[in-house]
Amino acid sequence: MAGSGPFDIVVLGGGSGGYACALRAAELGMSVALIERDTLGGTCLNRGCIPTKALLHAAEVADTAREAAAFGVKATYEGVDVPGVQAYKDKVVSTTVKGLTGLIKSKGITIVQGEGRLAGPTAVRVGDEVYEGRHIVLATGSRPRSLPGLDIDGERVISSDHALKLDRVPASVVVLGGGVIGVEFASIWRSFGAEVTIVEALPHLLPLEEESSSKRLERAFRKRGIKYELGARFESVQTTGSGVRVALEGGKVLEAELLLVAVGRGPVSEGLGFEEAGVELERGFVKVDEYCRTAIPTISAVGDLIATPQLAHVGFAEGILVAERLGGLSPAPIDYDGVPRITYSDPEVASVGLTSAAAIQRGYEITQVTYDLAGNPKSKILGTQGEVKVIAEKDGRVLGIHMVGARVGELITEGQLIYNWEALPSEVAQLIHPHPTQSEAVGEAHLALAGKPLHVHG
Amino acid sequence: MAGSGPFDIVVLGGGSGGYACALRAAELGMSVALIERDTLGGTCLNRGCIPTKALLHAAEVADTAREAAAFGVKATYEGVDVPGVQAYKDKVVSTTVKGLTGLIKSKGITIVQGEGRLAGPTAVRVGDEVYEGRHIVLATGSRPRSLPGLDIDGERVISSDHALKLDRVPASVVVLGGGVIGVEFASIWRSFGAEVTIVEALPHLLPLEEESSSKRLERAFRKRGIKYELGARFESVQTTGSGVRVALEGGKVLEAELLLVAVGRGPVSEGLGFEEAGVELERGFVKVDEYCRTAIPTISAVGDLIATPQLAHVGFAEGILVAERLGGLSPAPIDYDGVPRITYSDPEVASVGLTSAAAIQRGYEITQVTYDLAGNPKSKILGTQGEVKVIAEKDGRVLGIHMVGARVGELITEGQLIYNWEALPSEVAQLIHPHPTQSEAVGEAHLALAGKPLHVHG
Repeated sequence: MAGSGPFDIVVLGGGSGGYACALRAAELGMSVALIERDTLGGTCLNRGCIPTKALLHAAEVADTAREAAAFGVKATYEGVDVPGVQAYKDKVVSTTVKGLTGLIKSKGITIVQGEGRLAGPTAVRVGDEVYEGRHIVLATGSRPRSLPGLDIDGERVISSDHALKLDRVPASVVVLGGGVIGVEFASIWRSFGAEVTIVEALPHLLPLEEESSSKRLERAFRKRGIKYELGARFESVQTTGSGVRVALEGGKVLEAELLLVAVGRGPVSEGLGFEEAGVELERGFVKVDEYCRTAIPTISAVGDLIATPQLAHVGFAEGILVAERLGGLSPAPIDYDGVPRITYSDPEVASVGLTSAAAIQRGYEITQVTYDLAGNPKSKILGTQGEVKVIAEKDGRVLGIHMVGARVGELITEGQLIYNWEALPSEVAQLIHPHPTQSEAVGEAHLALAGKPLHVHG
Repeated sequence: MAGSGPFDIVVLGGGSGGYACALRAAELGMSVALIERDTLGGTCLNRGCIPTKALLHAAEVADTAREAAAFGVKATYEGVDVPGVQAYKDKVVSTTVKGLTGLIKSKGITIVQGEGRLAGPTAVRVGDEVYEGRHIVLATGSRPRSLPGLDIDGERVISSDHALKLDRVPASVVVLGGGVIGVEFASIWRSFGAEVTIVEALPHLLPLEEESSSKRLERAFRKRGIKYELGARFESVQTTGSGVRVALEGGKVLEAELLLVAVGRGPVSEGLGFEEAGVELERGFVKVDEYCRTAIPTISAVGDLIATPQLAHVGFAEGILVAERLGGLSPAPIDYDGVPRITYSDPEVASVGLTSAAAIQRGYEITQVTYDLAGNPKSKILGTQGEVKVIAEKDGRVLGIHMVGARVGELITEGQLIYNWEALPSEVAQLIHPHPTQSEAVGEAHLALAGKPLHVHG
C-alpha cells in the first residue's frame, strides 16, 4: 500500500511493543499502520528471547542426554550438531513469525515494509512515502551495545546477534557482562561443552537480582564449571590468530576463542528524526511519562526505546497501555516492580516485586523466609537445587518473591499474582499447593511466613 | 516409648494427612503421638506420588534422549536400565522419608512404630501398649482396589504397588482403568518401550477431567502409540505361560505380558476397631462432616480414609484443618473444588475449579476460551502440544481452569489462586505474563475472556 493516511495510529517498529500496540488499537477499532524494516516480531522474536530460549532448551536436552544414567536411562551423548540446533531454532522462530504476521494481517493492520523515519509530529516517512497518523507510536527498540574502544568485529569479538548464528560450538569463550544475556549464553555454551568465563564489573552475576539468588546462581555455575570474574573491569582485547586475549584492569589476562560482548542493549534512536520532531532523548532513550507519552502530544513511545525494563512483556504492556489510552480508555500506569523477570539459564533465576535491599531502602520493615528446594520432592526428582525466597512487610503484604532452580521461570506467575494483588502470606498459606510440584516451595515459604510452616525444619 | 498419655492427639497413620496433622498440632503446642506400621510418609511418599513421579521423570529423560536429534543434539538412546531407574527412584524416596522423619522428630512428636487399632473413643492400641489421646485422628489411608473376581497375584496381574517395584520393562501391558494411576503408568511404560493398552469403562480417559482435556490426552496418547479401549468393561482375565489374556465384555480379547489393575484405591478401614468404637463407615470410608469430624466427638478422620479427593495435598489440608480445629483456631472448611488436580503423564493434564459440565449443572451461565499451545512460543520450543481452557461465569468470576501439555502441572497453581480468590478474567488480564513462558497461555486465555485478546487469531 502506498503512503496514505491519516491513520489513527502509525507505529514505527514491529517488535513486541509496536505490534502489541497495533493489535490492541485495531481491536479497539482504530486504523493502524505498522512500519517495520526487518521481520515482524523485533528483537525478541528474531534475535532475542525466542531464539535464545530455543538454544537453552537444546542445551537442556544435551545435559539430559549426558546425565541420563543418573536416572537409569542408557544413552550416549555424542555432542551438538550445530546445523541441527540452528535448524530447530530457526524453525521455532520462522513459524512464530509466520503466525504473528498472519495475526497482524487478520486484524486489518496495514503492514509497511521499510525503514521509517519520523517526519514530524504526525508523520513517518518510508522511502518516498509518508504515512500520516493522528498519533505516532515510536517502537524502534534496541541493539547490542559495546564499551568505548571495544569494537565488535563479528568474528572474534561478537555480540548476541552473532552468537545466535554461530556455526560452531566455540572451544572457549569470555563473556563480558554477567547480566541476563551473558548468563544465558554462558549457560548454553557450557552445556554444549565450551570453557566459559564470565567477566562482570559488579560484585555479582545478575546484579539486579536478590543477592542470595545471585550467590545461588554463582554456586551452581561453579559446579557446572562456568568460571567468573566478579568486580572485574574490562581493559582491552587483542585478537590473535587463534582467538582473543582479554585484559582486565589489574593485569589479569583471559584467553579464549571468542569474546562475547554482553554489556547491555542501547536504544535505536539515532538518525530517525526523533529530535528534529521535538522528541526529547536522555542517554539515547526517548523520554516519556508513566503513560508512555513524550512531550509532543501526538507522539508516544514504548518498549526498549524508553528507559523501562528491556523485556518483551514490558513492551506488550506498554503497547497495550498506549493503544488503550489513545482508544479513549483509562488504563492505569504499569507498576514495573510487578513485572516478572526471568533468566533462563540452568538453573533459572526468576523474581517479581522488590529485592530485600530495595524494600528496606523504601522504608519497609521486612520479614523473609527462604525455602530450600532440597526439601521439595519434585525438585529432588528433577535433580535441581535452588530456593524460593519470599519477602513480606512485617505483618503485611508480600513485597517480593525470588527463585532459583530448574524451571522456576514458570512458577513466577503465581508470584506475579501474589505481588500485584497485594496478598498477605496468610492468604497464600491457606491454599495448599498440589503435591508433588515445585510450586509447593512457593506454598511452603508462604506457610512459614504466615507462622504455620509445614515441611520446614527448625 | 511405652504406651502412655494422654496425648492431646493420637494420630493413627503417618501418611500425608496424619503427619501434616501431627506437625501442625505440635506447632500449636499440643502433644502428639503418631502411629505408623510401615514407613512415615504413607502411600504418597512410599508407594504413590513420589515414586511414580520419579519414574515419570526417568520416562521424560528417556524420551528426551531418544528424540534429541530434533533439537540438534547427537545422542543414542540405548534403553532403560531398570535397576538404575529403581535406584534413582528409591534414593528420591529414601532421602525424602529421612527428611520427613527428622522433621517430625524435631517437632517433639512421639513416633510409634507398629500396627495401631482403635480401642475406644480416646485410645489406640499398638500391640500390648495403649496410647490415650484427648483426641484421636484416624488417617489409615488407602490401598489398591480390584474388581469382584479379579485376583491380583502380583506376578501377571499386578497393582500399582507391584508396578513400582517391577524388575523389568514389560514387553506389553494391559492397564485396567484410565484414571490418574492407569494413565501415568501407561505413559511411563510407553516411554520405556512397552506396548500399552488402557481399558476404561467410561467414555474417556481421565473421566473426571474436562472432556476436551480428556480428548486432547487421548489424541496425544494415540500419537505416542498408546492404545485404549473406551467404554469397555472388563470381563475376565486368564493367565497363560507367557502372560495374560484379558477378555472384555462384547468378546474382545487383549493379550499382554501383564495386567495392571488400576481401578482405584479403597480405604483401609477394616479390622481396625473403627465400627466397634462407634465410628460410622460408608462404602468403607469413614463418614465425616466438613470439619473432618466423625459422629464420635473425640474422633476425627482425614486423608484417603474419608470420601474426599485422594490427593496428598488434600490430606495435608485436612490434617492441618483438624489440628487447627483441635488447637482452638477456627479454620474454614476446605473448598474441594479449589484443590488443583494433576496427572503427570506426557502430556500432563491439570485443572482446578469446575468443569464446564459441572458449572452448567450448578446453574451458571458460562463463557469459555481455549488457548491452543500451538500459539505459545515456549511450548513450541519444548515441542509440546496442548491447551489452556478457562471457564468463567458470564460477566463474572473464573470458575475453572483446565490444561493439557508438557509441564502444565506447575502452571495450575496460578489457576489455584485465580479460582480461590474468585478473580475476574479482567483482573488476570491486567497482568501481562512473562515472555516466553508457557504461563503466557494462561494470560492469553484470560486476556481473550476479558475481551482483549493479544496473541489470538480470529
